[in-house]
Amino acid sequence: MTDPVQLTADLIRCPSVTPEEGGALVLLEALLSDAGFECTRVDRGGVSNLFARWGPKGHARSFGFNGHTDVVPIGDEAAWTMPPFGAEMRDGVMYGRGTTDMKSGVAAFAAAAIDLVHDTPPDGAIILTITGDEEGDALDGTTALLDYMAETEERMSVCLVGEPTCPNHMGEMMKIGRRGSMTAWFTVTGVQGHSAYPHRAKNPLPAMARLMDRLASHELDQGTAHFDASTLAVVTIDTGNTATNVIPAQCSGAVNIRFNDLHSGASLSEWLQSEANQVAETYGVEIDTKIKISGESFLTPPGPLSELVAKAVKAETGIQPDMSTTGGTSDARFVKNHCPVVEFGLVGRTMHQVDECVEVVHIEQLKAIYTRILADYFA
Amino acid sequence: MTDPVQLTADLIRCPSVTPEEGGALVLLEALLSDAGFECTRVDRGGVSNLFARWGPKGHARSFGFNGHTDVVPIGDEAAWTMPPFGAEMRDGVMYGRGTTDMKSGVAAFAAAAIDLVHDTPPDGAIILTITGDEEGDALDGTTALLDYMAETEERMSVCLVGEPTCPNHMGEMMKIGRRGSMTAWFTVTGVQGHSAYPHRAKNPLPAMARLMDRLASHELDQGTAHFDASTLAVVTIDTGNTATNVIPAQCSGAVNIRFNDLHSGASLSEWLQSEANQVAETYGVEIDTKIKISGESFLTPPGPLSELVAKAVKAETGIQPDMSTTGGTSDARFVKNHCPVVEFGLVGRTMHQVDECVEVVHIEQLKAIYTRILADYFA
Repeated sequence: MTDPVQLTADLIRCPSVTPEEGGALVLLEALLSDAGFECTRVDRGGVSNLFARWGPKGHARSFGFNGHTDVVPIGDEAAWTMPPFGAEMRDGVMYGRGTTDMKSGVAAFAAAAIDLVHDTPPDGAIILTITGDEEGDALDGTTALLDYMAETEERMSVCLVGEPTCPNHMGEMMKIGRRGSMTAWFTVTGVQGHSAYPHRAKNPLPAMARLMDRLASHELDQGTAHFDASTLAVVTIDTGNTATNVIPAQCSGAVNIRFNDLHSGASLSEWLQSEANQVAETYGVEIDTKIKISGESFLTPPGPLSELVAKAVKAETGIQPDMSTTGGTSDARFVKNHCPVVEFGLVGRTMHQVDECVEVVHIEQLKAIYTRILADYFA
Repeated sequence: MTDPVQLTADLIRCPSVTPEEGGALVLLEALLSDAGFECTRVDRGGVSNLFARWGPKGHARSFGFNGHTDVVPIGDEAAWTMPPFGAEMRDGVMYGRGTTDMKSGVAAFAAAAIDLVHDTPPDGAIILTITGDEEGDALDGTTALLDYMAETEERMSVCLVGEPTCPNHMGEMMKIGRRGSMTAWFTVTGVQGHSAYPHRAKNPLPAMARLMDRLASHELDQGTAHFDASTLAVVTIDTGNTATNVIPAQCSGAVNIRFNDLHSGASLSEWLQSEANQVAETYGVEIDTKIKISGESFLTPPGPLSELVAKAVKAETGIQPDMSTTGGTSDARFVKNHCPVVEFGLVGRTMHQVDECVEVVHIEQLKAIYTRILADYFA
C-alpha cells in the first residue's frame, strides 16, 4: 500500500516554487517508474513537466489525471508559525506550502493509481500529466504536456483534475466547468495642463471615470443553467499625480472579467473596445486597450464522467457534491480541448495563505475517492 | 534715478528660494532705509518679511504695494542654459530665477517709489509689504505682514500687487480679482476580495468612478459679470493594485476647483460632501473627504483704483489692459481683506520654468507704469 500522507510530506519538502522543479517531479518520476509507469519528462521554456502512462498507448479506456507540483511563493516567512517546506504535523494537520494546492491531490492520485495497477491491473491505461507551471504563466506547463501528447499521439479518454474544489467541507463540491477569465488594461491619454485652466488641457481622468462607471454598471447577464452570472471587477485606476494644480496627461486602469458560456473572450473584447471608443470620442482623448484572455469558459455537461466522480465522493464522504462552475481558472481550461474533464479535490480554504495546511484524514479520504473512481471506471 | 534693471540683477543674485531670505530683503531694507523709508522686519515661523513705509502713519492716502522676493526652486540645474542666480544678460534679456516672478516687479516698484519720494515728495504715504513666503505655504508671509499692520495700526488705503499678470504682451492684462481655489481628497474604502468572487468583496473603484464622473460632469455655473465659469479638475485617482485577481480595499482621488463669486469654499464643501455621501450610500462603501480651501474668490469691482492702473498702463504701453479675474491664486487673496487691491505686472510666460527671463525694456516700462500710477494717485 502506498501511503499518500508520507508521499505528500515528501513532496512538501521539495521547495518547488514556480518555476523551480525542486525535486518534486524527480521524486514522482522515480516512484511511478518503479510501479511500471512509462515516464517522460516534458520540459519546455525552463519549466519541468512529467508525463506518465501505465498500460497500452491509445487504449480506448485511458483514464487521465492532471495536477501540478509547483507552488506559490511563501510570502512573509516570519508570518508562518510552521516551516513552509517542513510538512510538520500537529493535531492531525500537516502544514506547508502546497499541502492543499495541490501536492496532496497529486500524492493521493499517484498512490491510488500505483496501488490499483499493482493489486488489480485494469484493462486500460492510466495517464498522469503533472506540471510544474500551473501557478505561473502556465505557458509551458499543461499546454506543453498536451502538445507533447498531440505530437506522440498519446490520448486520455477522460481527465480528472485534482485541484482543491471544496470550499469548506470535504466532498461538497466538484467542478464540471469554469468561467472564462480575462483582463483589460486601459490607458487614457489627454493633454497635461494647469488645474486653473482646464480648457487648455485635456483631462484623461473624467474619461476614465466615465469608462469605468459604464463598465462596472453594465449587467453582463443573469447566469445560465450551469453558470453564475458573469462578473466584471474594476481592479485598479492609477494616475500618480501628486500636484493638485496639475491636470495629468495620462491615467491607467484595469478590469477583470469572469464570464460564463453566454460570452467569449472575443465577444467581450469587442464590447470593451466599443465602450472605450465611445468614451474616447465623447471626451476627445485617446484610449489604448490591451486585453489578455486567460481562459475561455467551458463546461463538461453533467454525464458519465461527472456521475462517476460524484458517486465515488458520495460513497466515501456521504456527501453529494455540487456540480459547480464557480471559482477561478485551472488547467482544466487547457485539458477541455483534449477530452472531457472534471475536477475534484480537497478543501481549498488555506491555499496560497500563510500556514497552508491539510487534515491528514482528508488526504486518506481523497486517495480512497480516487481509488474508487479508478475502480468504477475500469469495472 | 534708481536703476530698476540693476536692482533686479542684484536681487536675482540673492538665492532666495523659499523659505531662504538669501540676502534679498536685507538688500531692499538697506536701500529703502537710505531713501527715508521706515523699515521693519516682520519675521515669523522661519520666514522673513519686510514692512516699509515712507510718510506719515495712518495717512488717508497711503498707497500700498505687495510683492515677494522668494522664488521657486530652480529644478534641474543642468537644464538651464544660463546660471539661475547669475542675472546674466543676452540680447536685451536678463536670465535667472525670479526675473519675472517677481523680483523685477519688486525692483520696479521700489525704484519708482524711491525716486518719487526723492523728486516730488507726495502728500501721503507709500507702503511696501514684501514677503519671503509667497511660493511656499504662505502661512507666515503676507498674512504675517497684515497681522503686524493690524497690531500696529498701519493701514494701506489701496494696494497694488506686482505679480506678473500679462499672458503674452506687456500691458494686456491686469487682475481685479481672483477665483477661489480649493482641493478635495476622497478616500473610498470597501472590502478587499478575489476578482472571481466580487459579491464577497466591496469594490471601492466603481464608487470612485461614479463620484468622479458626477463631479466632473456637473456644471458649476456659466460665469458671472467679471468671472469665467468655475471649473473642477479631477487631478488624480490612485489605487496601486497590481494584482488583476484582487479587488482592492481602498482607492483615493482628488479634485481641484477654481470658483467664482457665485460660490464659497463652504458652499462647495457642502456640495462635495453631499455627492460623496450619496455615492457612499449607493455603493455601501465609506468615503472619507478632506478639503483644503486655498483661497476664496474675491473681486475689487472696476472703480477708481483699477482705472488708475489701467490709465497708467495705457499711457506707457498704448494698450488698454483687460480687467481679468483669471489665473491661479496670489497674495492678493490676503490683501483683499485689508483694502481694495488690484494686480499688475510683467509678462509671466517663463515663470517657474527653466531659463526664466525678462526683457530689460519691460523692467524699465514697468517702473514707468508704477511711477505714473503713484504720481496720478497723489496728484
